Amino acid sequence: MKALKKRILEEGAIAHGNVIKVDSFLNHQIDIELLNEIGKEFKARFQNEKIDKILTIEVSGIAIAVIAAQYFNVPVVFAKKTESKNLDKETYESTVHSYTKNITYTIRVSKKYINEGENILIIDDFLANGKAVEGLLDIIKKAKVNLIGVGIVIEKGFQKGGKNIREKGIRLESLAIVDRVEDGRIIFR
Amino acid sequence: MKALKKRILEEGAIAHGNVIKVDSFLNHQIDIELLNEIGKEFKARFQNEKIDKILTIEVSGIAIAVIAAQYFNVPVVFAKKTESKNLDKETYESTVHSYTKNITYTIRVSKKYINEGENILIIDDFLANGKAVEGLLDIIKKAKVNLIGVGIVIEKGFQKGGKNIREKGIRLESLAIVDRVEDGRIIFR
Repeated sequence: MKALKKRILEEGAIAHGNVIKVDSFLNHQIDIELLNEIGKEFKARFQNEKIDKILTIEVSGIAIAVIAAQYFNVPVVFAKKTESKNLDKETYESTVHSYTKNITYTIRVSKKYINEGENILIIDDFLANGKAVEGLLDIIKKAKVNLIGVGIVIEKGFQKGGKNIREKGIRLESLAIVDRVEDGRIIFR
Repeated sequence: MKALKKRILEEGAIAHGNVIKVDSFLNHQIDIELLNEIGKEFKARFQNEKIDKILTIEVSGIAIAVIAAQYFNVPVVFAKKTESKNLDKETYESTVHSYTKNITYTIRVSKKYINEGENILIIDDFLANGKAVEGLLDIIKKAKVNLIGVGIVIEKGFQKGGKNIREKGIRLESLAIVDRVEDGRIIFR
């Protein structure tokens, strides 16, 4: 996706450990126009699929998922990372390890909001080691819903998440795949 | 806002301590159609104002802010609650006490994304004791930006947040104000 790659090259910063920072348009400040282009592109890539719901994970997946959902005309459900008094007691749970934050946390989705037989599209901002998506896949399995595919804004192709997901036979659509970072420059696949 | 109040009455649940749960359309599962109606309503209420940016706070403000931002045609910036390696070192900070979670946490906005003289609209999902909004107001003051107003989806009128904000002379637009909960029923103001 050309407009996205252009923005990553113009504004993306490389932090320690090949972390790609896209705070200026995706993760802290959000460019709504670009997000709409991203939403349309997800719809174009999954246009022949019947999708009932988009599943994402807090925090940074939410903005992308809700904008994209407008093109699919479906609700969004986001997995919660924090325990809250307000969350239902009946939840599907999984654990996720975050390498950037170096913690393992529990993610939860209320059993009310994903129902057996529904067709689910997972959307998230980043795919690196793939731990967040694997947590969502685990919840999808427990809930006996149908996974249609996974839509990712930026895949770090030099980490193993994408490979692992594709090897499971899951359809993975990444709008920008970073092949490598060379001398502080981002090179797309 | 009629459609919103209808949904709150139909699907809102009262949890312990007069917590109003709207997980089925706002805080866990998200109804995109209703969110668009909410976004349009915010635009209608602030239609004569020049707004450069919408400021919100993770997690549950994000979905509403990005959908609303489409009607204002401006970017969204969301304050972060969690310390992250990826966040800039130069931030405006404040602290917020959460009564529902009984913790005090630091919120941060990178100095890059709110700039002196900009016209800011704050949007959030709930207003109860008003601690989250007060934290954002504190950041706005530190950043020397102009506050145009505060847009809230559900205000709990029986708690002091709304009163405190209005007493400061700040324009507060709440789309639904819950006057009280009586015998498990929600009564709007």
